[in-house]
Amino acid sequence: MAELPIAPVKRILKNAGAERISDDAAIELANLLEEEGEQIAARATKLAKHAGRKTITADDVKLAL
Amino acid sequence: MAELPIAPVKRILKNAGAERISDDAAIELANLLEEEGEQIAARATKLAKHAGRKTITADDVKLAL
Repeated sequence: MAELPIAPVKRILKNAGAERISDDAAIELANLLEEEGEQIAARATKLAKHAGRKTITADDVKLAL
Repeated sequence: MAELPIAPVKRILKNAGAERISDDAAIELANLLEEEGEQIAARATKLAKHAGRKTITADDVKLAL
């Protein structure tokens, strides 16, 4: 699912010193980060359930990394 | 630099099956993804320069991963 907006991801590339950024590059990076985010989110959700909680906490996310 | 907005990151957690998500969890995940994005962006920028280009392409991002 495409959740992450492209503009902020383009700014991350810009902040890294990129002079020009193709639209495809920003879309590619957004997709990569979203996939990474989905994997971390899936693990964090399992960790919260394992701990008997319905609420995902920052510690779940840290441990899921 | 905080570029990634929290709401879409919260949706990634929601899509993973989380029933409830603490604000801190979404902020933590956004920070982690932003750090990962910064590292990929830095490498992609170097790769484009190495190839004699000023424009970052999707291939730079893929190779930077």
